[in-house]
Amino acid sequence: MKKALTFDIGGTKIYSAIINEQGEIVSEIEKFSTPKNLDEIQNLLKTQISKYESEVDIIAIATAGAVNNENTKVIGSTGNLVEGYSTIDFQKLSSKRVFVENDANSAAWAEYKIGASKNTDISIMLTLGTGVGGGIIINNKLLKGKSGAAGEMHFKMYSDKRRKCTCGSWDCFEAYASGTALKRTAEEMLNNPNITTYDVIEGVKSAKQDMINVFEKWQNDIINGIIGLSNIFDPDCIVLSGSMAQFVDTKKVETCANNEIITSPISVRLGTAGNYSGMIGVALLAMERGF
Amino acid sequence: MKKALTFDIGGTKIYSAIINEQGEIVSEIEKFSTPKNLDEIQNLLKTQISKYESEVDIIAIATAGAVNNENTKVIGSTGNLVEGYSTIDFQKLSSKRVFVENDANSAAWAEYKIGASKNTDISIMLTLGTGVGGGIIINNKLLKGKSGAAGEMHFKMYSDKRRKCTCGSWDCFEAYASGTALKRTAEEMLNNPNITTYDVIEGVKSAKQDMINVFEKWQNDIINGIIGLSNIFDPDCIVLSGSMAQFVDTKKVETCANNEIITSPISVRLGTAGNYSGMIGVALLAMERGF
Repeated sequence: MKKALTFDIGGTKIYSAIINEQGEIVSEIEKFSTPKNLDEIQNLLKTQISKYESEVDIIAIATAGAVNNENTKVIGSTGNLVEGYSTIDFQKLSSKRVFVENDANSAAWAEYKIGASKNTDISIMLTLGTGVGGGIIINNKLLKGKSGAAGEMHFKMYSDKRRKCTCGSWDCFEAYASGTALKRTAEEMLNNPNITTYDVIEGVKSAKQDMINVFEKWQNDIINGIIGLSNIFDPDCIVLSGSMAQFVDTKKVETCANNEIITSPISVRLGTAGNYSGMIGVALLAMERGF
Repeated sequence: MKKALTFDIGGTKIYSAIINEQGEIVSEIEKFSTPKNLDEIQNLLKTQISKYESEVDIIAIATAGAVNNENTKVIGSTGNLVEGYSTIDFQKLSSKRVFVENDANSAAWAEYKIGASKNTDISIMLTLGTGVGGGIIINNKLLKGKSGAAGEMHFKMYSDKRRKCTCGSWDCFEAYASGTALKRTAEEMLNNPNITTYDVIEGVKSAKQDMINVFEKWQNDIINGIIGLSNIFDPDCIVLSGSMAQFVDTKKVETCANNEIITSPISVRLGTAGNYSGMIGVALLAMERGF
């Protein structure tokens, strides 16, 4: 059975593991803090690759940032990676072929192959974490767009410039549906600049009404985004993953969204491919593509 | 060369013509007011079909409302057609195969085959008329979704319930970007319930500043919608068609949208397939599918 050495490169952590054709992790998972400069990132990848490449058929890298349609390089980043990251020549890191895909696209593929959206024709995965990632699968293909950057969940929730978004624009879905956004919603509603995402989640757990109101507002913004996406794509399901997804009442989101969707009813599901879905997805994609 | 007898069925008018494989109209175009009851609509179609079906290979119908993935029937309507319209059994209207597709999808296909989005991989057509229609083409295929209803331009421009939309929900793109929406924007900005879309367009022509402000706000909402769609799909181009498109400053829309789009720059174009693009598109689709 084929195996891939995989990485998941994020703004704060880099994970690495060996994964087989069934999407099973067959090694220890290694974890590193993401170095703060470009050379160190490349050196870290090279060291890991030289250690393990003889054991595998292919190198597969899930990464923050948009990845080109040839799956060879990063073409843009929405933020938290070191400057110059997109100049990394991934192909030079190994004598084997190196396959690269965006981390959210990779995670969406994992959900589609072994997780919550298995056996669906059209699915949209939303990763609710520090930011919001998106991956869209239509008839067994990732939606990549003309440059490879499709699936950016930067559509406006308001049109009158209320919240600046990390992308430089205003009022994007990301600015209302991320973990960071929950803090901003709390700040605005409670007029308290020191409140944290954690405070809201804990407050909801102990049934504090003001925190419940904040959380409901945040969840309602997620519902509004899902309504729009569902009218555009008419998907089978929306998969929620990422660190914030566990707090979402998926049944309620599904019911409320379906009350307003005019295409056809959707299913809203929590991701089941786990915390390493980025690595699993990119490994499966790379092996399927015969890289 | 194959020929199709085609219809374009809208809320107020029904058009009919014969179209060849190159998308050329090879007959007189006939025009009818849409009857106000179901039987009369069916009788009108039957009469036309029996007149011309011996001259053609196929019957192709572009219609308001969502059409199923098998292209045989209407599965839902967003409004202005007679009650029970979706019960019409189009297959019974002719001994020949009858191919049905949504009017906006059909028009998008015409733009893609012979019009403004020819030779693009990913295009989105927005029909700006009384309402807003949408058709999305990805790698030579219409995006139809799980039920066939995809491409509904009902994503929210605001999340705080400002304008009721024809779909029953609130603040959809359609409620801000249609011709009707221009009137509503004018009503709100000028505090005048009697102002019409025509007043605004005439006012802009005679350089009245208040009307220019209204128009710019409306156009800006269109820009905001295009930014979201472009971040989701990363398309080659956005095609604007429909009766209101001629008033849009496409160059300005393109420049402003590209200033905020984070995927890759798009091109914004006026549709060139003409007023009968619905009939042309559905005819070309039907003949390509070998119906």
